[in-house]
Amino acid sequence: MSRTTSPLDFAPLFAPGLPPPAAKWNGFPKYNFIGGHNDAGQVPLDDLIKTMNDVLAREGRTLATYGVASGPLGYQPLREFLAQKLKRTAGISCGADEILLTSGSLQALDLVNGIFLARGDTVIIEQATYQGALTRLQRLGVEAVGIPLDGEGMRVDALAAALDGLKRRGVRPKYIYTIPTVQNPTGTILSEARRHEMLRLSAQYGVPIFEDDCYCDLIWDGKRPPALYAMSEHGGVIHIGSFSKSVAPALRVGYIVAPWPLLSRMLALKTDAGSGALEQMVLGEFCPAHFDAHVPVLKRALRAKLETLMDALNEHFGTSAEFEDPKGGIFLWVKFPEQVETLKLFAPALAAGVAINPGAEWSTDQSYGKNRTRLCFANPSHETIRAGIAALAEVCRREFGVPARIANVERRRASKTPQNPRAT
Amino acid sequence: MSRTTSPLDFAPLFAPGLPPPAAKWNGFPKYNFIGGHNDAGQVPLDDLIKTMNDVLAREGRTLATYGVASGPLGYQPLREFLAQKLKRTAGISCGADEILLTSGSLQALDLVNGIFLARGDTVIIEQATYQGALTRLQRLGVEAVGIPLDGEGMRVDALAAALDGLKRRGVRPKYIYTIPTVQNPTGTILSEARRHEMLRLSAQYGVPIFEDDCYCDLIWDGKRPPALYAMSEHGGVIHIGSFSKSVAPALRVGYIVAPWPLLSRMLALKTDAGSGALEQMVLGEFCPAHFDAHVPVLKRALRAKLETLMDALNEHFGTSAEFEDPKGGIFLWVKFPEQVETLKLFAPALAAGVAINPGAEWSTDQSYGKNRTRLCFANPSHETIRAGIAALAEVCRREFGVPARIANVERRRASKTPQNPRAT
Repeated sequence: MSRTTSPLDFAPLFAPGLPPPAAKWNGFPKYNFIGGHNDAGQVPLDDLIKTMNDVLAREGRTLATYGVASGPLGYQPLREFLAQKLKRTAGISCGADEILLTSGSLQALDLVNGIFLARGDTVIIEQATYQGALTRLQRLGVEAVGIPLDGEGMRVDALAAALDGLKRRGVRPKYIYTIPTVQNPTGTILSEARRHEMLRLSAQYGVPIFEDDCYCDLIWDGKRPPALYAMSEHGGVIHIGSFSKSVAPALRVGYIVAPWPLLSRMLALKTDAGSGALEQMVLGEFCPAHFDAHVPVLKRALRAKLETLMDALNEHFGTSAEFEDPKGGIFLWVKFPEQVETLKLFAPALAAGVAINPGAEWSTDQSYGKNRTRLCFANPSHETIRAGIAALAEVCRREFGVPARIANVERRRASKTPQNPRAT
Repeated sequence: MSRTTSPLDFAPLFAPGLPPPAAKWNGFPKYNFIGGHNDAGQVPLDDLIKTMNDVLAREGRTLATYGVASGPLGYQPLREFLAQKLKRTAGISCGADEILLTSGSLQALDLVNGIFLARGDTVIIEQATYQGALTRLQRLGVEAVGIPLDGEGMRVDALAAALDGLKRRGVRPKYIYTIPTVQNPTGTILSEARRHEMLRLSAQYGVPIFEDDCYCDLIWDGKRPPALYAMSEHGGVIHIGSFSKSVAPALRVGYIVAPWPLLSRMLALKTDAGSGALEQMVLGEFCPAHFDAHVPVLKRALRAKLETLMDALNEHFGTSAEFEDPKGGIFLWVKFPEQVETLKLFAPALAAGVAINPGAEWSTDQSYGKNRTRLCFANPSHETIRAGIAALAEVCRREFGVPARIANVERRRASKTPQNPRAT
C-alpha cells in the first residue's frame, strides 16, 4: 500500500520574533574587508602544533571528562595565564576563579546580556560600536542609547548628560558598554582621565560598566591605560576579552573577568557543559611560553597591512576617504562624502567582489553612520587590499560620482612592491 | 585625596527569572556516578594526536578565518563524514549542507528549542528523560507532558492518547522529544513498529519529532532500527547527535540534521561565530580513518564496566535494586524499594563520596522517579564502581533500612579479579 504523506508545515510552529533565516554560505568574497578574520600567515602554527602535542601527550585522557580536570570555569592553566597576563598588561588583580572561559567573546557578550537584560531595558553604548552588540540588543528588545566618540574614545561629557537625562526620565540603564582599548570601529583608546570620569559616573548613577577589551593586545606602541576593571573602586565593572584577535579567531576562546557573585550567575546560564577543551588546552600550553613573543610579530604584520590599506585609500579615493590612523587593531573606520551611502554601496560593491561593512550597521545614529564604512585589513593580502580598494573606488565612482577621478591604477600599482612579502 | 566608593549593588539590575547561581566547583566526588563522562582509558589518544598533527600541518592556517574554510555550518570534511555515517548506520539520506555542527548536543538542544519554544508552549517528552532537557523546558516556561516508557521505549498508545487529549484542549504541542536509540535513562531502543506509529501520529497531529540520537553508537550488539529521520515521509523530524559519547565529551562536538528551511532558522540563532575549530578538524580527520575501529573497542570496555556495576548492585543491594540490562550506553536506571527516596539519599551519599542522579530530577512524574536513580558507569574504574556501590549500600541502609543486610564486602571483593584490567 503506497501512502502519500503531505509535508509537515513548520511555519506555524516557530517561536515569535525569530530573526530572518541565515543565508547559504557561498565562500568568501574576492576582496573581503569584513569579519574579524586574522592574518593567515601569522597563525603561530608550529608552536601551536608543538604545544598541542605536549599538552595532549600529558593530559589528553582528561578529554573523557566534561571540563577536563578543571571544572566548568574552563582549563585551569589558561585561567592562571590570564590572571598573570591581565595583571601585567591591564593592571587587573583577579584570581583564576574570577575568570570564566567562553566560546569566544561572543558567548561572553551573550552571558553578560543574559544576566542583566530583559525586554524594555535600556543600555548605554558607544555611538559607533560592534555590530554584533547592536544586533543582540535589537533582538532582546533593549534600547541602546549611543554616546558620541572623539579621538580619545567615548565623550564622557555626553555620557554624563545621557545618564542625567535618563535619570530624570526614571530610567536606570543596565550597563555602559564600552570597547575602551582600540575601540571598534574607530580605533581610539579611552584616555586614563576619561576612564576615571566614566567610573565616577558609573558609581554616581549605579550603572555598571561592561568593558570589552578584545582588541587590547593589538596596540601598535603597546601603551595603554589600566583597564576600567583595574581602576574601579566600586567593583562595578565586568571585563571580557578574547584570543581571537591575538592568536586565531577559529579557536573560539574568550573570557569573562568578574567577581564570583556575578560569575556564578553567568555560569548558571552557560548550558553548554563547557567550551571546547582542545583550544583551551593548547592556549594554556602555548601562551605562557610563546604569547609575548608572538604578539609583536603579529602586530608588525597587521601594521604593514594597515599602511597598505591607507596608501590604497589615498591613492584611489584621495581626499574622498577620511580616516584617523587607528591606535591598533584590524580595521579602519572611513568617512566618505555625504552622498556616499554605504548601505547602498554594499550590494554593487559585493557584486564586484568587494565586501564592506556599511557604517549604519555599526552605529546607533544612522545619520552619523550612513556615509562611513569599516574596512578590515588583517585577512586579505597586501595585493588583495590594493586591488580591492581599487575595485571599490571604481564602484563608488560609478554609483555616487566619488571619487571624481580614478587614479591610473595599473601604472601606480606597478611602481609598488609588497611591503611585507611574508604576510599572505 | 582618598575617597571611599561604596560597592555597586548588582542585585536590582539582574534580569527577572534567572536560575540560582552556580555552586563553586570543588573537584569530582570520589565515587562519581553522575555526568556523561567517558572512560579515560578509551580516549583514542594516539590516533587523535596523529590526526591532529596531520590536519593542522595541512590546513592550520585556516584558523585565521572564522569557520575555517567551511563557513558557518562547520568543518566540511566532518560534515561529509557524518553524511556518510548517518546513511550507513541510521539510514539517513542527507547532504553535508543539511548538517550543522554545534558545541555538543546541548547547543543543538538550545537551538531547536530556540526556533520553536515560547513561554506557555507545550511539548511531549518521555516520562523519564535527560535532566538537561527538563531543566531547559522549566527555564523556558514550557509545559512538558511525559509519556510512559516500557522495554520498547516510549509507549505509543499513551502518546496517541496524550496527543488526542491535548487536541481536545486546543493545544498543539511544539514537538515530541524522544531519545529513541538507547534511551536516557532507561537504556531502551524504540522498536521499528513503534517508530512507524510515532511518525504516523506526528503526521496526523502536525507535531514534529525531535530525535536525540546521542547514544546510538553505543549499542552492545550494534543492531538498531533506522532513525526516525530516515523513516519519515513528512519531513517532520529534526535529528541531533554527538561525538561526546563515542569519542570524548570535552571535545564538545554535536550536530543537527534538518532540512535547510529549518537549519537556516537555527543558524540565525547561533550567534557564537562558529564552534571550536580544532575539535571539528581533528574529528574530521580522525573519524574517516578510525571511528569504525574505535567504537567496538570502547563498547567492550563500557560493557565490562556495566557488568561490574550490575554485579556490584546484586552483591550489595540484592533484590533491593531492580534494573533492566540496558541495550547500550553509559548508565543504568535503577529502581529501589518505595521507601528509598533518592532525592533524600543524594546528600548523605555525597557526604560519603558517592554522587548519584536522583530519579525525580530525570522524570516528569515525581512518584515514578522518586525511588529511582541513574548510575553512570563509564568514567569510574572497575574498582571504584565496586567500592562506590558498597558505600552507597551502606548509606542507603543507614538512611532507609535498605538493603536490610550488607554483604560481607571484604570477603566477596577479595574473591574477584578485575574483568578488564585495560580499562582505568
